[in-house]
Amino acid sequence: MKDRPLSSITIAVDAMGGDHGPCVIIPAVLMCLAKQANLTIILVGNEVELQASLNEYKIPLHPRLILQHASQKVAMTDLPSQALRGKKDSSMRVAINLVKQGKAQACVSAGNTGALMATARFVLKTLPGIERPAISVVLPTMKGAAKVRVLDLGANVDCSAENLLQFAVMGSVLTKAVDKIDRPSVGLLNIGEEEIKGNDQVKQAAQLIGQHHALHYIGFVEGDEIYKGVADVIVCDGFVGNVALKVTEGVAKLIAQYMREAFNRNWLTRISALAAIHVLKGLGKKIDPARYNGASLVGLNGIVVKSHGSANSLAFAHAINQATLEVEQNIPQLIRQHVADLLQDRHIA
Amino acid sequence: MKDRPLSSITIAVDAMGGDHGPCVIIPAVLMCLAKQANLTIILVGNEVELQASLNEYKIPLHPRLILQHASQKVAMTDLPSQALRGKKDSSMRVAINLVKQGKAQACVSAGNTGALMATARFVLKTLPGIERPAISVVLPTMKGAAKVRVLDLGANVDCSAENLLQFAVMGSVLTKAVDKIDRPSVGLLNIGEEEIKGNDQVKQAAQLIGQHHALHYIGFVEGDEIYKGVADVIVCDGFVGNVALKVTEGVAKLIAQYMREAFNRNWLTRISALAAIHVLKGLGKKIDPARYNGASLVGLNGIVVKSHGSANSLAFAHAINQATLEVEQNIPQLIRQHVADLLQDRHIA
Repeated sequence: MKDRPLSSITIAVDAMGGDHGPCVIIPAVLMCLAKQANLTIILVGNEVELQASLNEYKIPLHPRLILQHASQKVAMTDLPSQALRGKKDSSMRVAINLVKQGKAQACVSAGNTGALMATARFVLKTLPGIERPAISVVLPTMKGAAKVRVLDLGANVDCSAENLLQFAVMGSVLTKAVDKIDRPSVGLLNIGEEEIKGNDQVKQAAQLIGQHHALHYIGFVEGDEIYKGVADVIVCDGFVGNVALKVTEGVAKLIAQYMREAFNRNWLTRISALAAIHVLKGLGKKIDPARYNGASLVGLNGIVVKSHGSANSLAFAHAINQATLEVEQNIPQLIRQHVADLLQDRHIA
Repeated sequence: MKDRPLSSITIAVDAMGGDHGPCVIIPAVLMCLAKQANLTIILVGNEVELQASLNEYKIPLHPRLILQHASQKVAMTDLPSQALRGKKDSSMRVAINLVKQGKAQACVSAGNTGALMATARFVLKTLPGIERPAISVVLPTMKGAAKVRVLDLGANVDCSAENLLQFAVMGSVLTKAVDKIDRPSVGLLNIGEEEIKGNDQVKQAAQLIGQHHALHYIGFVEGDEIYKGVADVIVCDGFVGNVALKVTEGVAKLIAQYMREAFNRNWLTRISALAAIHVLKGLGKKIDPARYNGASLVGLNGIVVKSHGSANSLAFAHAINQATLEVEQNIPQLIRQHVADLLQDRHIA
C-alpha cells in the first residue's frame, strides 16, 4: 500500500472571497502546494488581478497552480439570492461549478457564508436522504489533544428533530473518517442534562438519535460542556450553534483584552509581561483561531469548505488542508452510505 | 434628603440551597448584615442545623438575623413539579412565601433553578401584562466599566415575539433603575446583523421592539458582540441565552486551564509565573464569576434572586446585594408601570 503513488487532488479556491482576497489567499495556496506534492489548485478570480498579485510578489506560476477567470465577485453584503441570481460568473460560483463538473474535488472559499451555502446547495444539491446541509467546525477541548466537532453552526435557523438526527450522522461520519475517532460519541446541546429539559425538537431528536444503532449517543450536553471534551460530536440547530461559536470568539477577545490591560498597568507589570512573554506567546498560539479555521459544509453532493472571512494566510491554508482531508476520505460518499443504512434500518424497523 | 433615615429592608434567604448550604450562606449573610445597617435577614432552613452551624463557628445570633424553620429541602435533582407539590415546607418555598406574605421584600436562593422559578411563579404570580418571567444577569464587557444585562437565560425554552418584547421592557427597567443607565440601548440576539437573518420570532420581535417608543432599540447583535458592550440590554430566548451563558463559563475555564499549563511547563515558565503572579491574581479577580453572581427572576409580583449553586460566600453576598438594590428601586412596581404604558400605547395605536 505504501508504495502506491498518492492519487492527485484538485481543489478550486475562490481567490476573491473574504476580507483580504488574493493577498492572503495566494500565499496560503503556495504554502499548501509546497507541502503537498499531489495537490493541484485552481485559483478562481479576476485573472488580471490574480496575475498582477503574482507579478507584484515576483511569484512564477507554480506548475500545479491553474488560474481560472471569473468576472464577478460576491460581496460580503450580498444577499444569498443576489449572489445566486445576479452573479453567475462570480469567483465563488465558478469554483463550485468546477466541483459539479468534476474538474475539482473540493472548493474552498472565505466569502459570504449565506451566499456560499445557497450557491453550493443550488449547484451541488444535497445528498439523498439529507434535507439540509450543515456547517461544522472542530473546536479545542480541555482534554489535551481531544477535539469536538460541532454542527450546525448557522446554515439552518430552525431545525426539526429529523434534521438534528441527520446532523448527528454526518458529524459522526466526518469525525470517524477525518479525525480518526473510531466510535465517536454524540451529544445533543441542551439547557440541562435531564430528560425533561429543553424544547420539543431537542427532546424528539434525543429519541431519534438514541434509537439509531450506528450512533454512539451519550445524551444531552450543556453549553459549558462543549469545551470539556465530554463528546466527540455535538449537535444543535444553526441558531444556537452560531451563537455558541460567536460567544466563544467574544469571550476569548474579552479575556485577551483583560490580559493586555493587566500586564500594561505599570512598569512592574510590564516587566512581568517581559518575563512571561514566551509563555504568553505559546498561550496565544494555542488559542489562535487560525488553528481551527475551515468549516465544512456537509450534506452536499461535493466538498465545500468555508474559511473565516478575516482569516490570515496560515488560517486559510488550514481550510485548504481540511478540504484535502475530506477529499482523501471521500466524505460525501461515506455520508451517502451511512444515510442509506439509516433509512434501511427504519424500513426494517 | 440625606438626613432621612434609610428605610429598612428585609430579605428572606434560603439557607439550604446550592452545593454548599449553610456553611457558605451564613458567612455571606453576616457580611451583608455588617455592611448594611438597614438590612434584616430571615434565614430559612432546618433550625437545628442552622443553630448548629452558628454554634460551631461560635457566632452569636445577630440582632438583625432571624431564623425561620422549614422542615424540607429542595434537592438539585428534584423536578420543578416535585418541589412544587411534594415540598410545601421546603426552605425555598417558605422563603418565597415570606415575600408573598409581605414579611420579606425579596428572596435569595442558590437552589435548583427550575424549582425556584416554578415555585416563585406559582406563589407570587407574574405581573399584569407579563406572560412569562425571565432570568437576567449582568455581564462584563470590553468597554471598561460598562456592563450588559442579558435575558432570558433559561426560564423559557421557546419564546414568542411578544415574550421577547416583554423581556426588552423588563431588561430596560432593571438597567435604568439598578445599573443607573438613563436610556439603556436594547439589542436582539441574532445570527447576523442584517434584517433578513434569523428565525421568525426574532424577526417579529425586532418589529415589536422597534415600534415601542419607550425602548431604545439598536437592532440585532451577534454572539461575539455581547461582550463588546454594543448594547446595555440584550434580549434572547431562554434556550439561546442559557447556551450563551454556559459557553462563556466553558471558554473561561478552557483558557484558564491553558494558562495554568503554559505557566507550569518547566522551571523557566514557573519563574515567569512567579514574576507575573500579581498580574495573574488581578486578572483572576477581574474575571471572577463571583463578581457577577445574582440572577434576577423578573416579571414576578415580588423580587427573587438566584445565586449560582456553586457560589462561594463572596458570590452569595453579591446575590443578596442584587436583591437589596432591587428592593430599593421597587423593581416589580416599575415594571408594572412600564408594562401598563406599553399596553396603553398599543391601545392608542
